[in-house]
Amino acid sequence: MKALQLTGPETLELRDVPVPEIGPNDLLLRVGAAGICHSDLHVLHVPFRMRDEPLTMGHEIAGTIEAAGADVAGRTEGERGIVYLCWSCGICRECVSGNENVCLAAGRTAMPPCPGLGPDGGMAEYVRIPASSFVPIGDLDFLQAAPIADAALTSYHAIEGARAVLRPGSTAVVIGIGGLGHVAVQILRATTAATVIAVDIAEDKLALAADVGADAGLLADAGAAAAILDRTGGRGAEAVFDFVGIDSTATLAVESVAPNGAYRMVGLGGGAPEITSGPAGGPGWPWGATVRKSYGGTRSDLINSVELAKAGKLRVEVERFDLADGRAALDRLDRGLIRGRAVLVP
Amino acid sequence: MKALQLTGPETLELRDVPVPEIGPNDLLLRVGAAGICHSDLHVLHVPFRMRDEPLTMGHEIAGTIEAAGADVAGRTEGERGIVYLCWSCGICRECVSGNENVCLAAGRTAMPPCPGLGPDGGMAEYVRIPASSFVPIGDLDFLQAAPIADAALTSYHAIEGARAVLRPGSTAVVIGIGGLGHVAVQILRATTAATVIAVDIAEDKLALAADVGADAGLLADAGAAAAILDRTGGRGAEAVFDFVGIDSTATLAVESVAPNGAYRMVGLGGGAPEITSGPAGGPGWPWGATVRKSYGGTRSDLINSVELAKAGKLRVEVERFDLADGRAALDRLDRGLIRGRAVLVP
Amino acid sequence: MKALQLTGPETLELRDVPVPEIGPNDLLLRVGAAGICHSDLHVLHVPFRMRDEPLTMGHEIAGTIEAAGADVAGRTEGERGIVYLCWSCGICRECVSGNENVCLAAGRTAMPPCPGLGPDGGMAEYVRIPASSFVPIGDLDFLQAAPIADAALTSYHAIEGARAVLRPGSTAVVIGIGGLGHVAVQILRATTAATVIAVDIAEDKLALAADVGADAGLLADAGAAAAILDRTGGRGAEAVFDFVGIDSTATLAVESVAPNGAYRMVGLGGGAPEITSGPAGGPGWPWGATVRKSYGGTRSDLINSVELAKAGKLRVEVERFDLADGRAALDRLDRGLIRGRAVLVP
Amino acid sequence: MKALQLTGPETLELRDVPVPEIGPNDLLLRVGAAGICHSDLHVLHVPFRMRDEPLTMGHEIAGTIEAAGADVAGRTEGERGIVYLCWSCGICRECVSGNENVCLAAGRTAMPPCPGLGPDGGMAEYVRIPASSFVPIGDLDFLQAAPIADAALTSYHAIEGARAVLRPGSTAVVIGIGGLGHVAVQILRATTAATVIAVDIAEDKLALAADVGADAGLLADAGAAAAILDRTGGRGAEAVFDFVGIDSTATLAVESVAPNGAYRMVGLGGGAPEITSGPAGGPGWPWGATVRKSYGGTRSDLINSVELAKAGKLRVEVERFDLADGRAALDRLDRGLIRGRAVLVP
Repeated sequence: MKALQLTGPETLELRDVPVPEIGPNDLLLRVGAAGICHSDLHVLHVPFRMRDEPLTMGHEIAGTIEAAGADVAGRTEGERGIVYLCWSCGICRECVSGNENVCLAAGRTAMPPCPGLGPDGGMAEYVRIPASSFVPIGDLDFLQAAPIADAALTSYHAIEGARAVLRPGSTAVVIGIGGLGHVAVQILRATTAATVIAVDIAEDKLALAADVGADAGLLADAGAAAAILDRTGGRGAEAVFDFVGIDSTATLAVESVAPNGAYRMVGLGGGAPEITSGPAGGPGWPWGATVRKSYGGTRSDLINSVELAKAGKLRVEVERFDLADGRAALDRLDRGLIRGRAVLVP
Repeated sequence: MKALQLTGPETLELRDVPVPEIGPNDLLLRVGAAGICHSDLHVLHVPFRMRDEPLTMGHEIAGTIEAAGADVAGRTEGERGIVYLCWSCGICRECVSGNENVCLAAGRTAMPPCPGLGPDGGMAEYVRIPASSFVPIGDLDFLQAAPIADAALTSYHAIEGARAVLRPGSTAVVIGIGGLGHVAVQILRATTAATVIAVDIAEDKLALAADVGADAGLLADAGAAAAILDRTGGRGAEAVFDFVGIDSTATLAVESVAPNGAYRMVGLGGGAPEITSGPAGGPGWPWGATVRKSYGGTRSDLINSVELAKAGKLRVEVERFDLADGRAALDRLDRGLIRGRAVLVP
Repeated sequence: MKALQLTGPETLELRDVPVPEIGPNDLLLRVGAAGICHSDLHVLHVPFRMRDEPLTMGHEIAGTIEAAGADVAGRTEGERGIVYLCWSCGICRECVSGNENVCLAAGRTAMPPCPGLGPDGGMAEYVRIPASSFVPIGDLDFLQAAPIADAALTSYHAIEGARAVLRPGSTAVVIGIGGLGHVAVQILRATTAATVIAVDIAEDKLALAADVGADAGLLADAGAAAAILDRTGGRGAEAVFDFVGIDSTATLAVESVAPNGAYRMVGLGGGAPEITSGPAGGPGWPWGATVRKSYGGTRSDLINSVELAKAGKLRVEVERFDLADGRAALDRLDRGLIRGRAVLVP
Repeated sequence: MKALQLTGPETLELRDVPVPEIGPNDLLLRVGAAGICHSDLHVLHVPFRMRDEPLTMGHEIAGTIEAAGADVAGRTEGERGIVYLCWSCGICRECVSGNENVCLAAGRTAMPPCPGLGPDGGMAEYVRIPASSFVPIGDLDFLQAAPIADAALTSYHAIEGARAVLRPGSTAVVIGIGGLGHVAVQILRATTAATVIAVDIAEDKLALAADVGADAGLLADAGAAAAILDRTGGRGAEAVFDFVGIDSTATLAVESVAPNGAYRMVGLGGGAPEITSGPAGGPGWPWGATVRKSYGGTRSDLINSVELAKAGKLRVEVERFDLADGRAALDRLDRGLIRGRAVLVP
């Protein structure tokens, strides 16, 4: 079969490889679509999580069950679904409580195994997955469904952890209207009555935000924090979701989040928010606000995201590429040219 | 009447001043005891919150109602109580939701008016308070009750916001076993089944922690984070309460909190935790953990604290001083010589 | 001034009475509109809560501040608002925690004083209210705003207490599409992604539900429970809000709520659900479901409701009547002829 | 091997049967202890859940892994543990969210398969279990550990669902101080600061409650509700846990629970609480209170219970019987003669 493999730093090749073999608790999935995530650029550029041998990329996977392992129960060939990306231990305290994204087996600061970052991923014709990672999608289009596996999952999780402060009349700021951000806007619209303000450096991304339901858009310039304070009576936004995560967006978040608010760092840009324990008084970090860097999401977050899509409340803006054009698609993403999510089709 | 007043930077005087007059919605409280808080040192040393005119200090106040304003309902002369220190607007969205400590009227980064930091406080024979700030204490001893007004309130609030992660088998770290810390240990013991680890630079403070129920004590040295990781199977503590708030304690907290854990900055030491949005991998900030700098607490937190004391589950370690010895008591606090809480009696 | 007063059982008169005098912590409100609630029929027909002297009815009040008592802070003449209907003690543990609707002073089974059911209400040109009960509405139309004071408040509270089970993909059933029900449909749409099924005995009420956003409508006949089970894969609805509260709707709720679901009795019809502690097995009460009869709501629920209306996410369907036609409006309500809410204008 | 089998209504026999064979995802457990639950009496007397063929009873199982199936990961022979009793599907929306006790596959009103009620249980020398149901216990004694599998699990779940109302100063009533009740008292003491009132018909059971930490005890007579109201200032108890579940205990609960309180039906006595949607006013069902009949608990509840036992905060009062004496032990339980929990040892 064809597979898009990382064969070395910065080197991506479309190779012919054997169809994966599956174990008794695995599924073989015939890939229908595989989304391209910003973190794939980390894998490409930085040795973010690499093995020595060639690695098939892709952790946003939708497809059809081609074969099921001997001990798999409750799944049938031909069933359509997406892949939950936390391939966690399944038996630790966190996993059995539904918090697989912080599986104990992963240790204190690492992530559980994720297809395309350790095990082979979904940018191929077939992929082997643990049966427990399969989540049914019914009739959802594969192009729509694949990005749910990360873009929606991760956004949903960040929002879920801030839901308590998103009452009617609250304001939610979404920084970075890319693959995750434009999905986050929709999740906020569908599940809260908060006012949604989109922030981006590009006008066309703000236009995308408006298309998917943002109440307002702001260019990410020096006046953005003041503009948010102005729109919130000086109080700040009850929640700020930062899908970029560089120093400037961290500063924006710190300066524009409300007391008791939620600042969520999702983008892996390496930015550092300036937070001190000192008594407040300046323009800085307000009392009671929380900052949190979340990874992926729970299986429940994923199911909730699928349900939003099924109900027509979440529609991913997709640019379709053939698997063979994966490198070109990654390059376009790197240059900020993708509207919504780039998705590969084998 | 006698009042301990700040008359200038570093200048504290016991002065004769008129008994305060009260308005129709006020109470005149005959002070039974007034606790000394670490933040009083900020008032003394730093111009933390000062008016031009002389300021009677003291925001941990217990006493008896001497007189009630004409429009006060539900309170009677002779009733014993303590004073809720957030003298907030009472009508904004946060106040009516029970979040007076982040009252909208205080603005984004300031605190609501607090006796002893703006209005005259309780280090005097009498104090004027808004009737709405009075919380009954029944038969509690004034020496015990006064510190509840801040030491317990603030600790309770920090713990309340982390309660979701404090399950049986979880670990809570309390850094700094002073007036707040030794109370926090007791609140944790009374309201959770978490294992409590106390951390301090002084052996006698660790001894105090053990006396009030800590399961273990650690000296705050270079090995403290490793020791916490060791005791938690490498996972870290589900909650770290930092009652010091300097750079070294912030570092300890970042390095010892668990994924999805809670790091709460309570001490106003001005320390800055090193948190980045980058993908984890080093010893640093784990996925899903939250950091929060909280101020005071809600009226409900205060009532909960009073109930703990009434039930015998919270007992403040107190050093008693005459009002005239207030300066000496503050000096002892400054040098770390107070065991538990210093309390003044007029 | 003119006031619509209950002067005896079943006797409602438009009378000339003095403009109320106000105390130092009161406001005099010039009434802009007063909604008519189903519970007003209880007041009229049953001696639901009556004083000996004539009682001005009306607990859904919107208006303008005409005068403020001497000690009122933060309110100005000319400000527009609605009246929070729980005139609770304000100082008990529940009140200071934001749960005024279960104020301790009201006792175990009674409600706090409510305008129009004890103190004189708002079906008059002016009404005296405690300043603390005033909630600003900005530019909202009085006809729209008045019903928020109960129809939205009570619906919001019932929904808020069931929010945890209303995830995407969940189903919420609203029984009775009257003044409260048609508002509940909108609150559900605005703040959750649940599928909303309306149930009523009248086709025109189901049409109203569809107009305000219900996903489906069912006639309240013998097949309703089966139809709900059918639409939910046999599982039942995660939440059932019963705005009627008679035996047949209670039976429908018990038979159609899901395991771990929420059945909320809001209508005061006196119906009794058949619930037993026996091991399940029949068509009955599922494991983990909760039943709750809630009263009114919290001040925070009211503010949330106002915010929904301000954001255009909640629009009450109103039939306008002159104050003099109050009795006729009540009769129409009694016969089920009101579409949405009847509102009186002085 | 020896197994205590139900071979017909009321007929329990100690039989020689083959050691169970295990599948690739199963474990073979060498039973160390098996608790006897009140619901075993339902199995014995009522055809509560029976198969045609002989059924080995016992759903409270502790033991050692004797053998692991070919595909089991993360478990080793010799490991000690207990068995989570909800053998749910593991892949439905509820299971993956950590709510296995309301597994979708079980349908709306039935329970997931449970050892000893469908599959063979643990009153035998060996038992086959799904590997996913194994929960490690470290060094806990088997006699102590076995009852955790149901007596603690079910109690913990009921308490967990009421935790929000169990603040300091709250009152929790525990009705029925048997196997579950005496554990519930301890869980309440360890994880909340609520005052615990035990209620039972027998003085010796109240003595047991006092031994394990109850603050007070009341005989379950006609004056019990009044006594609870008296101790709570007329307000009632914030939570009432009914481990009996007959009409008289349901009445007691309805009459003694506080507004916004929690009434939890755990005992399967078939009692029906009298709850109506009518406006309150009598001694009845207060506003805002919830009633819930819960089944078992979640895997997370079970782990929390194990942690309490490991920390020495939960100690089951045990009466030990040989497996051969199982029928005698059941008879003693039926007559109310067991103090705490009867546990069989093969």
